[in-house]
Amino acid sequence: MTDLSTLAAIRSALAGAPAPDATARDGASDRNGQLTKPPGALGRLEDLAIWYAGWRGEARPRITAPQVLVFAGNHGVTARGVSAFPAEVTVQMVANFKAGGAAINQLSDFAGAKMAVHALDLDRPTADFTQGPAMSEAEVCAAFATGWTAVDAEADLLVTGEMGIGNTTSAAAIAAALLGGTGWAGRGTGVDDAGLARKEAVVAEGLAANPDRSGLGVLAALGGREVAAMAGAIAGARAHRIPVILDGFICTAAALCLFAEDKTALDHCVAGHLSAEGAHQRMLNALGLDPLLSLGLRLGEGSGAALAIQVLKGAVACHSGMATFAEAGVAAG
Amino acid sequence: MTDLSTLAAIRSALAGAPAPDATARDGASDRNGQLTKPPGALGRLEDLAIWYAGWRGEARPRITAPQVLVFAGNHGVTARGVSAFPAEVTVQMVANFKAGGAAINQLSDFAGAKMAVHALDLDRPTADFTQGPAMSEAEVCAAFATGWTAVDAEADLLVTGEMGIGNTTSAAAIAAALLGGTGWAGRGTGVDDAGLARKEAVVAEGLAANPDRSGLGVLAALGGREVAAMAGAIAGARAHRIPVILDGFICTAAALCLFAEDKTALDHCVAGHLSAEGAHQRMLNALGLDPLLSLGLRLGEGSGAALAIQVLKGAVACHSGMATFAEAGVAAG
Repeated sequence: MTDLSTLAAIRSALAGAPAPDATARDGASDRNGQLTKPPGALGRLEDLAIWYAGWRGEARPRITAPQVLVFAGNHGVTARGVSAFPAEVTVQMVANFKAGGAAINQLSDFAGAKMAVHALDLDRPTADFTQGPAMSEAEVCAAFATGWTAVDAEADLLVTGEMGIGNTTSAAAIAAALLGGTGWAGRGTGVDDAGLARKEAVVAEGLAANPDRSGLGVLAALGGREVAAMAGAIAGARAHRIPVILDGFICTAAALCLFAEDKTALDHCVAGHLSAEGAHQRMLNALGLDPLLSLGLRLGEGSGAALAIQVLKGAVACHSGMATFAEAGVAAG
Repeated sequence: MTDLSTLAAIRSALAGAPAPDATARDGASDRNGQLTKPPGALGRLEDLAIWYAGWRGEARPRITAPQVLVFAGNHGVTARGVSAFPAEVTVQMVANFKAGGAAINQLSDFAGAKMAVHALDLDRPTADFTQGPAMSEAEVCAAFATGWTAVDAEADLLVTGEMGIGNTTSAAAIAAALLGGTGWAGRGTGVDDAGLARKEAVVAEGLAANPDRSGLGVLAALGGREVAAMAGAIAGARAHRIPVILDGFICTAAALCLFAEDKTALDHCVAGHLSAEGAHQRMLNALGLDPLLSLGLRLGEGSGAALAIQVLKGAVACHSGMATFAEAGVAAG
């Protein structure tokens, strides 16, 4: 059992993260060069399959057990009028996830993924971060550990998503703290101009009230329980060499906290999609990630990443299923 | 049996193309507004589902029977050194399609699509279009009819792909003839700079040798049998109100011939992906189409469109499977 009870313990766990299997990766690269297609003609699908093979330690892998984890949390900062929806919607949507009625249920089923939802102390919102840290060290570590331990060691792919009224404000504050600059706040679920201005002001107040700029320090001060759980799940998946598809703005902010601790912490991750939430592209740029899809989604829940499972599955299906030039008797050009 | 024996007959068939079902489309739009998500949060997935519903005439549709049709043809213009691969590869790849070893086989299986390959007179290449029309009227009409009749009336989605050494040159010539300008030739399967210059020169010679600028006239003069078959399949699908996902550069050139005949001829189509073949974006711009995927593919075969089936399936799964606010007891904001 990995000790995740303090931020120092989590930092130790992150430092012990495994690397990909170079033999499997090289084997996959060799195989890719022999498949019945012009070199490079499958574009990013080729890179994805080789990357996936390296992390799974198999030159000719399959994806048969994707997992989707949705974490939900409530935010004290909603008292500041930063969302178009009331905080009660978080618990209502958790019920909808459990009943199978949300977008992520349909997309998880479609991807053949096992989906689970973890509601984190919804009756105990985080503190309003404009007044000090959103979470104590014990609280952020507990949420991080919930995410870490929720990862199924037998899964071969992970998507993490979230639900939490107010969490685009939290994500914007994390980005502002770790990347600098302004303009990180966006429309979220649909705030008007006044709401947007409130979000920007709240972000600025949050940064002023919380001086720690380490990745995990920012996660505790400006994150939420579901954000910390996503960070924990992303890091936990790495411990099992399970590749991760990142979702949109909030998930990427969680990932950013890991990246700020260790520039290699997201090597097992790809960006599933570009969110319509305005500043997501800036965040992806800072992480050096190029999204697989760009379809204007801004729902969260893991929805964009769950759809992107199909792209990765398609890449691996081509890589592992296609005939080689020799097998097919095709001239190699 | 639709008469497709002359270009005039084909033009009559195109003129009789059906429109989408406005009632189903409006019903789908109403349903979309009630689903448990903020308005517009599923981005293009919402538009796709409503578009699909309209064409299928069902406000809450399912996609259960996609069809993938791959057409293969040989091109007289290959004698001019426009491809990195010898013409023999066309017949070798047809055997690979039939044996299940190509990328399109893996992607069709993954999409749950029935795939069929139609080899069109591979031992009888089209004429070198720098010397006059590639095909006679009888030849282009026969190829068009092959595509039209290959569409399964029971399918609920169609992807058309192709294989034909030399056909990026044909597609570039079609684009140049119908859209004007130069620079339509690209690297195809991987020609060098000298090969690229030869392609540009061949395109210019082809335009000079073939003055007809009607859509079907250009298809006959500069297309190939597989290009004409794709145009026929796209138009044939419309007759059954089967939506079509267009593939890359060559498929889009086939579609362009229909569009040049009738600006509404592609209303039942979406662009599956943006090909890495340089001028594809220009062609999509001319058609007003925004691709669903942009992953650097340039293989043809229908591969990019087959992968994009997953996006459309995901859109329809969300639309038809999600709970409404009323069903889920969620506050609508």
